[in-house]
Amino acid sequence: MSHNSFGHLYRVTTWGESHGPALGCVIDGCPPGVSLTEADLQWALDRRKPGGSRFVTQRREADEAKILSGVFEGKTTGTPISIMIENTDQRSKDYGDIAKQFRPGHADYTYFAKYGIRDYRGGGRSSARETAARVAAGAVALKVLQTQFADIKIRAALVQLGVHKINRDQWDWAQVDQNPFFSPDPSTVKAFEDYLDDIRKAGSSIGAVVEVQAEGVPAGWGAPIYGKLDSDLAANLMSINAVKGVEIGEGFNAATLSGEDNADEMRIHDGQPEFLSNHAGGILGGISSGQTIIARIALKPTSSILTERKSIDIDGHEVDIRTKGRHDPCVGIRAVPVAEAMMACTLLDAWLRHRGQTGGGVFSVG
Amino acid sequence: MSHNSFGHLYRVTTWGESHGPALGCVIDGCPPGVSLTEADLQWALDRRKPGGSRFVTQRREADEAKILSGVFEGKTTGTPISIMIENTDQRSKDYGDIAKQFRPGHADYTYFAKYGIRDYRGGGRSSARETAARVAAGAVALKVLQTQFADIKIRAALVQLGVHKINRDQWDWAQVDQNPFFSPDPSTVKAFEDYLDDIRKAGSSIGAVVEVQAEGVPAGWGAPIYGKLDSDLAANLMSINAVKGVEIGEGFNAATLSGEDNADEMRIHDGQPEFLSNHAGGILGGISSGQTIIARIALKPTSSILTERKSIDIDGHEVDIRTKGRHDPCVGIRAVPVAEAMMACTLLDAWLRHRGQTGGGVFSVG
Amino acid sequence: MSHNSFGHLYRVTTWGESHGPALGCVIDGCPPGVSLTEADLQWALDRRKPGGSRFVTQRREADEAKILSGVFEGKTTGTPISIMIENTDQRSKDYGDIAKQFRPGHADYTYFAKYGIRDYRGGGRSSARETAARVAAGAVALKVLQTQFADIKIRAALVQLGVHKINRDQWDWAQVDQNPFFSPDPSTVKAFEDYLDDIRKAGSSIGAVVEVQAEGVPAGWGAPIYGKLDSDLAANLMSINAVKGVEIGEGFNAATLSGEDNADEMRIHDGQPEFLSNHAGGILGGISSGQTIIARIALKPTSSILTERKSIDIDGHEVDIRTKGRHDPCVGIRAVPVAEAMMACTLLDAWLRHRGQTGGGVFSVG
Amino acid sequence: MSHNSFGHLYRVTTWGESHGPALGCVIDGCPPGVSLTEADLQWALDRRKPGGSRFVTQRREADEAKILSGVFEGKTTGTPISIMIENTDQRSKDYGDIAKQFRPGHADYTYFAKYGIRDYRGGGRSSARETAARVAAGAVALKVLQTQFADIKIRAALVQLGVHKINRDQWDWAQVDQNPFFSPDPSTVKAFEDYLDDIRKAGSSIGAVVEVQAEGVPAGWGAPIYGKLDSDLAANLMSINAVKGVEIGEGFNAATLSGEDNADEMRIHDGQPEFLSNHAGGILGGISSGQTIIARIALKPTSSILTERKSIDIDGHEVDIRTKGRHDPCVGIRAVPVAEAMMACTLLDAWLRHRGQTGGGVFSVG
Repeated sequence: MSHNSFGHLYRVTTWGESHGPALGCVIDGCPPGVSLTEADLQWALDRRKPGGSRFVTQRREADEAKILSGVFEGKTTGTPISIMIENTDQRSKDYGDIAKQFRPGHADYTYFAKYGIRDYRGGGRSSARETAARVAAGAVALKVLQTQFADIKIRAALVQLGVHKINRDQWDWAQVDQNPFFSPDPSTVKAFEDYLDDIRKAGSSIGAVVEVQAEGVPAGWGAPIYGKLDSDLAANLMSINAVKGVEIGEGFNAATLSGEDNADEMRIHDGQPEFLSNHAGGILGGISSGQTIIARIALKPTSSILTERKSIDIDGHEVDIRTKGRHDPCVGIRAVPVAEAMMACTLLDAWLRHRGQTGGGVFSVG
Repeated sequence: MSHNSFGHLYRVTTWGESHGPALGCVIDGCPPGVSLTEADLQWALDRRKPGGSRFVTQRREADEAKILSGVFEGKTTGTPISIMIENTDQRSKDYGDIAKQFRPGHADYTYFAKYGIRDYRGGGRSSARETAARVAAGAVALKVLQTQFADIKIRAALVQLGVHKINRDQWDWAQVDQNPFFSPDPSTVKAFEDYLDDIRKAGSSIGAVVEVQAEGVPAGWGAPIYGKLDSDLAANLMSINAVKGVEIGEGFNAATLSGEDNADEMRIHDGQPEFLSNHAGGILGGISSGQTIIARIALKPTSSILTERKSIDIDGHEVDIRTKGRHDPCVGIRAVPVAEAMMACTLLDAWLRHRGQTGGGVFSVG
Repeated sequence: MSHNSFGHLYRVTTWGESHGPALGCVIDGCPPGVSLTEADLQWALDRRKPGGSRFVTQRREADEAKILSGVFEGKTTGTPISIMIENTDQRSKDYGDIAKQFRPGHADYTYFAKYGIRDYRGGGRSSARETAARVAAGAVALKVLQTQFADIKIRAALVQLGVHKINRDQWDWAQVDQNPFFSPDPSTVKAFEDYLDDIRKAGSSIGAVVEVQAEGVPAGWGAPIYGKLDSDLAANLMSINAVKGVEIGEGFNAATLSGEDNADEMRIHDGQPEFLSNHAGGILGGISSGQTIIARIALKPTSSILTERKSIDIDGHEVDIRTKGRHDPCVGIRAVPVAEAMMACTLLDAWLRHRGQTGGGVFSVG
Repeated sequence: MSHNSFGHLYRVTTWGESHGPALGCVIDGCPPGVSLTEADLQWALDRRKPGGSRFVTQRREADEAKILSGVFEGKTTGTPISIMIENTDQRSKDYGDIAKQFRPGHADYTYFAKYGIRDYRGGGRSSARETAARVAAGAVALKVLQTQFADIKIRAALVQLGVHKINRDQWDWAQVDQNPFFSPDPSTVKAFEDYLDDIRKAGSSIGAVVEVQAEGVPAGWGAPIYGKLDSDLAANLMSINAVKGVEIGEGFNAATLSGEDNADEMRIHDGQPEFLSNHAGGILGGISSGQTIIARIALKPTSSILTERKSIDIDGHEVDIRTKGRHDPCVGIRAVPVAEAMMACTLLDAWLRHRGQTGGGVFSVG
């Protein structure tokens, strides 16, 4: 058990604080012989990187990943891959005021309650900066998956910003990287800009919903009962900062459906099993069905806001706090590449376990 | 790693199929010296037991738990507690027709895709009958927690049946065991009865939402980053049969809130920290805050329905299936005690880890 | 983490006390589709069973294993295999005298120091009776291994009884089951009989050394650095009751060797790599080399003896103890099938992990 | 499961190759509030550091540990401690000749058999250079233990060099750091020097035995059955490079003892339980007894020798190999601080688990 690790056979351990010298991860269990360079990580890190638009934090970090082990002559060796990302734009002085205060909505109070000590600079370990390490690990996982399953695609998008939902009929994956919101629906962009500009200028913040999909995953991955693919996804996605809900397929809407409407019927198409719908989100009994895996996460608004909020300090005094420093007005935006990373890591891990325990053969009918 | 286990220091391993001779669990890591008898398990099992009303499956099982180890002269010894529940009312012949067919919405297809073999009788391992073992383990966990934290209360209720939600203003915990739906709102009972009678008579089924709360949990439990209390809860609750979504506190609604509205302010009350609201659902940064922990799960409708659905068989033939056998028209109802059990197990595990890694001391201000 | 489990992908959890109603294990991660019946377990359990000769305990247990789950129509399904063995010949009254006393050499004092409570009847959980569950799990593991690797042979033998060592030049595996000591050297049997008869009649006991070998294991199994095959073997063998030492290949003798003498040279033979010696015991860098894996364990003498020994009781009084009850004069004898079982479980687990993380392909030269 | 991690609640993950840019570890689960600086690691690393005498490898490494996370204002915060040690004196060209050859006794062949690729420079991941990370993690563990248990002492010594054993009657811990062999017996030093000089000059190598002791450990640590303190020690010590045997207390000698001689009797002394001997090596039933914990490990001779040995290459050709490069003539010497580190990590982990599962209270009689 490691509380800073996730995964079983593809196991990622992350370390580092927001304002320490560096952060990173150690990836254990990456299969050998896969081509891997720092460039394979960098494209993913660049998507998560702060400072890319006025809608995200203005902290400037190059987020350059260095691979310190586990790769030899451009290929993975099966030994642990250590990845380090140096922090370069800390402004710890921004946080002097809150050294003794608990910012509402943040983890300040609970870390202190648990440990009796905390690195208050930028949230320390509880900062979303930690997710850079996840993105690096996810890029490695994706690379491995793609060497084995050419058709696998793992993609996320922002589908709701505050009260505004995208129009799913307009969904176009090609649009996601064309706007600062990772929205798949170009018709939303202007409205999102105006909405978030207002929020940002008011020093406020807003929540969001992100959807992540994995196409091309064979049937048979996931391990019931307590290593179910959806259980693992739920844990790994819920561990992302600010996430307050996770759903698979129909999710909470499934509560309103009848058995007739919810069950995905099957037929044979070109000699292969084919589902006629995908209410299940690609997972049945905790095992992948071969359909697209679909998960959504709800993210709360950034807790750092400029409006004064009531709180207390470690000496038991009542205080009022305005949170300065540089922050994302909507943490949900930069969660898009993080969600992809967690999906990639979860799937690679499920595949390796499936291969280990069953040989990885996948049933074909007929 | 065991795929049929959950928890870290309080670790539960379950076994058994719907139509095998028995099912059960092994609990490892239960603290010693706690009074425990079979009666401590039976009250909980009786709440989950089938056959209690016309709104649940008519399978008749006594669900009597036998403790085979780990208890000596009425007290836990710290060694593994093995619990066995015999199956007595299997009607395996009900399932002969589906030996080769994949019931839509069930795990038949995916188990076969994964393992190349499955016990088709009543869903085999994927049957919700497995949750009896969870309920037994949860009853033990609750007993342990209550010896240490007299104020802890872990309670669940059904808050939505299909499209019908309870009125939260009418919430009364005392009502939950007074109606066959575990509804905390007595005003819903008649409507629920009529609604579910229609569904039941039509051979159909419907989804539900269950809310589980834990009061009296001290601040400081849960282990960031990947052993977060909400991550563990998400995994453990998502592992319950038919669950398609998990949310904590505001959950998906948090996406629509501003930072001002979502952050829970604090004051000092009678010398103790006090939160002025509980949008967070009692968890911040993955660590308990001392507030009531609140989680909700969405359950899909039972996949076993009498209406014919299109499917295929293991030989690649297209078939149409009506699922006979005895089934719950709404699996969400009997999920109520299961959700309580998973909450109890998750919390005990979090407390033991907290005690191990920090000594378990909890910060008090002032 | 479960303290009563071992293995990673083939994970065995045992439960039960010496004088409880039953003991058993849950095997998680057994590959599907392997033929398995209770008879497959019974031959192994019969070898470990008490009462077989005057040189082992006279407790009479049928040690009949019941399979309660995980097998359907004679084949494993990939779901947990629950195995139960009922205790039938407890004589708990033999232990009334020691309810409050700590028998020297036993775990009485330390269990009480740890848990503050103990089941004193026959040693409770610390009894070697627990090893019956290991033997059952080992029989399953062996069955799985043999379906995939027809040439695998896992065999153990007693190679030293007290000060008497066998003559390795006389080693004949066929002899092991022909004498009550599991000795591979028939020339030792008479001497062992006389030696142990004297010890037994004096109410004394003696230690032993057991060697376990695995032939036909392909190169490549084991996972450096901390999941090394020899690390896993060391942990699993050391966990057997009374074991005080574990060595691989040359073991402690390696300390006296020069690099020239110790290194196993290689040549090509019939197009395949061939080692010219096996000082390493089949493991290099924690990974199997394709040679026979060789481990030895040292077992201390049974602590239950009829001679009075000085001790204390839980109230802090000094007492003198003679241990009555039925005991093995040399626990090392019945450890032979247990060592085989632990080797089988360890190897199956290593193979499943190897298959998961690398695909399981094994390098061939040329 | 991580194959490059050990420990449960105090969990250490190491990474890095002999000739990569750096190596290090991530420590998860270190309790908060413990004073820790890089100097606390450096004294331990300096003891293991190469180049200290003519009897160890002449590779010159500063082995300076940098703490990258988990420490704030001089104290541990409970978050992961990332430690990095840069490699500065690689001479990879020494290894060009063996890029395709398998050095006898090394892990070259098995790593290639497992992974199909290996970093051949200096043994890559299988190099004993990895143990620097263990020593750093051990220094942290020791610091934590000493804050809680002032009397704990963890010390190792070389007790056998080839065929030469120390005289245990001359044991003086103060001598260990006064000679290049970590021998506790000053009378051996001259003989060891002459013996190892001859071996070194001949380009040969020799094995050794190291003993590690832990004084002041309370009774009650360790978790039966498969998390036994001796099981964990066996796994962790066996994972050290070149170790081929592990024994506890009497170890292999226990095989020759009678029950009367082996059992450690008890009396009350000054109101406390007192053992009259320590054949058990401080562990009974896998749980610490309060006596000094004693373990010994046997290390094989360094496989790198200047004498030609027969081997093969990856193309299936037969070759003869003389291993150049800089090597320890006896790897057992520098294993002394490594053994201490593994003991410290194992004990801290056992204590945290004991605290978690039982509250950590320890029984006192009377």
